[in-house]
Amino acid sequence: MIHRYQPTKYYHTYGPNPPALHIKPGDIIITSTVDAGGYDHEGNQITPEMRQSNPDTVYSPSNPLTGPFHVEGAEPGDTLTVEIQRITLTRPTAWSRNASNFGGLTEEAPGRRLLYNDPIPSQRYEWSLDRENNTATTTLPGSKQKNPVIPLHPFIGSIGVAPRYGRVEMSLTPGEYGGNMDFPGVSEGSTLHLPVSWRGALLVFGDVHAAQGDGELCGVALETSAEIQLKLDLIKEQIEWPRVINDDWIMVAGSSRPLMEAYKIAHVEMVKWLTTEYGYDKWDALQLLSQVGRCKIANTVDPNYTVVAKFPRKYLPQ
Amino acid sequence: MIHRYQPTKYYHTYGPNPPALHIKPGDIIITSTVDAGGYDHEGNQITPEMRQSNPDTVYSPSNPLTGPFHVEGAEPGDTLTVEIQRITLTRPTAWSRNASNFGGLTEEAPGRRLLYNDPIPSQRYEWSLDRENNTATTTLPGSKQKNPVIPLHPFIGSIGVAPRYGRVEMSLTPGEYGGNMDFPGVSEGSTLHLPVSWRGALLVFGDVHAAQGDGELCGVALETSAEIQLKLDLIKEQIEWPRVINDDWIMVAGSSRPLMEAYKIAHVEMVKWLTTEYGYDKWDALQLLSQVGRCKIANTVDPNYTVVAKFPRKYLPQ
Amino acid sequence: MIHRYQPTKYYHTYGPNPPALHIKPGDIIITSTVDAGGYDHEGNQITPEMRQSNPDTVYSPSNPLTGPFHVEGAEPGDTLTVEIQRITLTRPTAWSRNASNFGGLTEEAPGRRLLYNDPIPSQRYEWSLDRENNTATTTLPGSKQKNPVIPLHPFIGSIGVAPRYGRVEMSLTPGEYGGNMDFPGVSEGSTLHLPVSWRGALLVFGDVHAAQGDGELCGVALETSAEIQLKLDLIKEQIEWPRVINDDWIMVAGSSRPLMEAYKIAHVEMVKWLTTEYGYDKWDALQLLSQVGRCKIANTVDPNYTVVAKFPRKYLPQ
Amino acid sequence: MIHRYQPTKYYHTYGPNPPALHIKPGDIIITSTVDAGGYDHEGNQITPEMRQSNPDTVYSPSNPLTGPFHVEGAEPGDTLTVEIQRITLTRPTAWSRNASNFGGLTEEAPGRRLLYNDPIPSQRYEWSLDRENNTATTTLPGSKQKNPVIPLHPFIGSIGVAPRYGRVEMSLTPGEYGGNMDFPGVSEGSTLHLPVSWRGALLVFGDVHAAQGDGELCGVALETSAEIQLKLDLIKEQIEWPRVINDDWIMVAGSSRPLMEAYKIAHVEMVKWLTTEYGYDKWDALQLLSQVGRCKIANTVDPNYTVVAKFPRKYLPQ
Repeated sequence: MIHRYQPTKYYHTYGPNPPALHIKPGDIIITSTVDAGGYDHEGNQITPEMRQSNPDTVYSPSNPLTGPFHVEGAEPGDTLTVEIQRITLTRPTAWSRNASNFGGLTEEAPGRRLLYNDPIPSQRYEWSLDRENNTATTTLPGSKQKNPVIPLHPFIGSIGVAPRYGRVEMSLTPGEYGGNMDFPGVSEGSTLHLPVSWRGALLVFGDVHAAQGDGELCGVALETSAEIQLKLDLIKEQIEWPRVINDDWIMVAGSSRPLMEAYKIAHVEMVKWLTTEYGYDKWDALQLLSQVGRCKIANTVDPNYTVVAKFPRKYLPQ
Repeated sequence: MIHRYQPTKYYHTYGPNPPALHIKPGDIIITSTVDAGGYDHEGNQITPEMRQSNPDTVYSPSNPLTGPFHVEGAEPGDTLTVEIQRITLTRPTAWSRNASNFGGLTEEAPGRRLLYNDPIPSQRYEWSLDRENNTATTTLPGSKQKNPVIPLHPFIGSIGVAPRYGRVEMSLTPGEYGGNMDFPGVSEGSTLHLPVSWRGALLVFGDVHAAQGDGELCGVALETSAEIQLKLDLIKEQIEWPRVINDDWIMVAGSSRPLMEAYKIAHVEMVKWLTTEYGYDKWDALQLLSQVGRCKIANTVDPNYTVVAKFPRKYLPQ
Repeated sequence: MIHRYQPTKYYHTYGPNPPALHIKPGDIIITSTVDAGGYDHEGNQITPEMRQSNPDTVYSPSNPLTGPFHVEGAEPGDTLTVEIQRITLTRPTAWSRNASNFGGLTEEAPGRRLLYNDPIPSQRYEWSLDRENNTATTTLPGSKQKNPVIPLHPFIGSIGVAPRYGRVEMSLTPGEYGGNMDFPGVSEGSTLHLPVSWRGALLVFGDVHAAQGDGELCGVALETSAEIQLKLDLIKEQIEWPRVINDDWIMVAGSSRPLMEAYKIAHVEMVKWLTTEYGYDKWDALQLLSQVGRCKIANTVDPNYTVVAKFPRKYLPQ
Repeated sequence: MIHRYQPTKYYHTYGPNPPALHIKPGDIIITSTVDAGGYDHEGNQITPEMRQSNPDTVYSPSNPLTGPFHVEGAEPGDTLTVEIQRITLTRPTAWSRNASNFGGLTEEAPGRRLLYNDPIPSQRYEWSLDRENNTATTTLPGSKQKNPVIPLHPFIGSIGVAPRYGRVEMSLTPGEYGGNMDFPGVSEGSTLHLPVSWRGALLVFGDVHAAQGDGELCGVALETSAEIQLKLDLIKEQIEWPRVINDDWIMVAGSSRPLMEAYKIAHVEMVKWLTTEYGYDKWDALQLLSQVGRCKIANTVDPNYTVVAKFPRKYLPQ
């Protein structure tokens, strides 16, 4: 069954919020997301009333999330599978910015300043999206190289279920429930597995990026709106951390701080996965992963950093 | 001019050791390296007398290095360029191992134990190299998947000049001088740039890997012997950290601990490079790098970790 | 003017919540706090209705906070001073526990497991408080040393204003606004300075500890209820991070991850303080602080870690 | 038996160097140390010929070490005990400095720059020592507070045995063998325990500090020369990390990077110590240590950082 859902309100938290829709395992959702700043396909910003949390903050919180979607029969200990069937960008522009108090080159404290010197100048970049040719370009005002044309690679920056350890109040935070992983592998054709901690799973998502480099260095990608088609289903088995599967790779996303901790989580989970599902001995898995594994730093800017361990599917049994 | 050099002794330090050979800028060296354990193309281990440092240690130190090569005219503040013209594997085997007290899943203290539980079992893996078909395979004794066939990608694991801050006594350590970066990008067809700190530069190298995953998770790659052909030259300009250039990318390797520090070093240096050489404004460079940059974790096991920032050459001026 | 306030509801967030009381600068508050688990002076737990946030979480959130107290005239950019005139423990017991998924010996990911082995056994410890003799004791069930008698040192574990970067939804988190710093220096006779970010400052506090070691290693101190008397005032100057002053020391509390970042924040702020207020040259301040400074690790268990830089008052001008 | 030894050469490495003296367990050594820069009690610097390592470095390596002392009967797996009977400062001056590329406020890469801005100005401070009154003073050239008078607390900055994992070539590095821990607790009246890894233990020491703040923030303490009297003995049991015992505390020094790792090592070892020697149950030990433990950051500047876990002796069985 296909559900079309037009959001009229958005959440900024991962948690047990009232469901927007109840669906059955195997159902498909077609819906839309606004960008990280709350701008929709016409460039209009959602109103404060549409934001379902932090109504009294003085600033506009980031990453409004569409949902939650309650999947019938999903129980704590299950795994929610999210097949990403389609991500269609719904406007011809995206924005990005360098931020004075954000990004992977600042210190890591709340507020993320540069501890010893002048802040990075805040500067907004408007990117034009050529959806026909799958490219984007912008003007670099201070540079001789004015208009780089870069490839589009749309993906869902923030997607997660209600977390095990209670509500996570900032949609900026990734964790064992998914969340703001900012991982480009969460794109059309991939399937994401998330550990269910609340009845109904309560999936939310948003923050589509039209393109992004590894680590999201300056803290902001090409932020834009999208229409998204997902097929949700359940596996009656338990996983610990988000998994992503595409044609070529199986992947685990670990999110924590410091960065090395996220690296360890992802790789320990990958060894477990190879051992429990694919017939590898634990220590053989470590050896083979050490020789053929690839590793992505997804983000170094969020309250937790995300590192992805990748293992080629060609070494899995058929 | 082409120099053929057959090493009779090996160093385990980066530093101002007596040169094995004096060459001129533009000259080519053809020489050989033994593997990380000191085994040559016939599988014979070098003798203790051939090791030029730590003669009184009870164990065999890792990563014997061929050289040093003294480049005439190289002065502190210059940049040494190393064109990697050829890496030929010289035997049909490589070895690897899981190590009880090593690798990216252990704690990070000296000795690298698992702090709370039983150590990872030490286990050696013999890999057969099919140099015709450019593949390797091994037996995974505990697994149902017995014999994975993986692609070869030979590269130089350890390569560096005499360092700025004095001798680095363990060839296992990477730093601003290069060293044991364990970065697969240092392969045939790439050119490595290193900052010269001592008269003559004093290049040493060894520790060729036939293949390796990102991060070198278990701490050991496919260790083997090789014949290597390098062309050395000088640029009369100063760089701060190793740079690697190949057909598609310009890259900077930062080495430090914790892991996030290596990430920052590599990206700060890349922003500087784009600014000083390629006409980008500093903050435009940060924005574009954030959207098109790629990032590699080269190693998480050495005394310093290595992270590589990558920028596509197609966005550079011709 | 002295205000007596008996709380009927508690918050679990630092943020712009509706004030419990409006007071004037120079006024004194006498009020009570429940313990980290929500237990009051009679050992009764507060009801779910009394908790003002996260009503739909399945677990009892930690660290209920008394307040907020709105200080008239407090504007963003001001400094709130909190003179801690009295902390009276209001029951003869405290509890603590070792927690399976918490504390400074676990990995640092959300949920804080031990990554490679069996979790720390969860175990509760009941501590008896001898308020006459200022000591506490408990039974150590597995040990030959059964009943250690330890000194009491009551302090406020969680105390903060509404934060600069929006609401912080977990009262477990410390930051530039104060919060759950778990710093034993916030005790009777000390004065705490906090940076005001919202009109009225909106001070909340709770989570009194009867005693605690450095770092709060297992994640839980001697948790108990208290009556607290505070005098609040304003300084029309801006500070960046919490400061604590007592008879012997001036102190700065930095909170972040990784631990080294908290250390740097605290010490950079201390150098600034010595420079701007006490006539020290910046680099002289660095030198003197390096020789006479003391440093405390307050906590290694919260979402941010807290490190305190201390400078002896005897080296300040009179 | 008492041995008086006047050093004529100094080492800059921890490792299996030729012994300066063979002694028996229970013997006493009276000898002298030069300061971190190699200056003796008359202010004369040792000659390059007296330095037993790195003869070809262009700079003067830090922390020349007196010794090694070979203790008869010391075997790998034993514990060397070092009773610090006396530390007498042998000249009326000490020096310190702020260093451009060193210290706890710089980035953590080799060379330790400030990544984003101008370096800390290098500046030398001459401290006068009043050994009668046990104080020191210096001139702070840029400050209104000109001449702080601070207390002396002499201790041995660098002291270690030959390490388990081979030679450590920089006397600046602390580890499981002791080394440059820069821990003020290694002072007169304390006993240091070190794990023996080589026959004879091969103790070296030097780098006495007349005073130092926690963490050695700027990277340099009050560096001076000393006469030292030590009593060495053996325990036929194995320890993993350095332990220090004084009248009030038992202490463990963990050295690693990142800082949190050093914290964990020290505390895990302390829990083990309380369990194996003092009759505590493992988890009871964790609970009690969490409530009464104290923790010191000894250094944040060396290639490994050192954190010390402290447990009060009054809770140990008599």
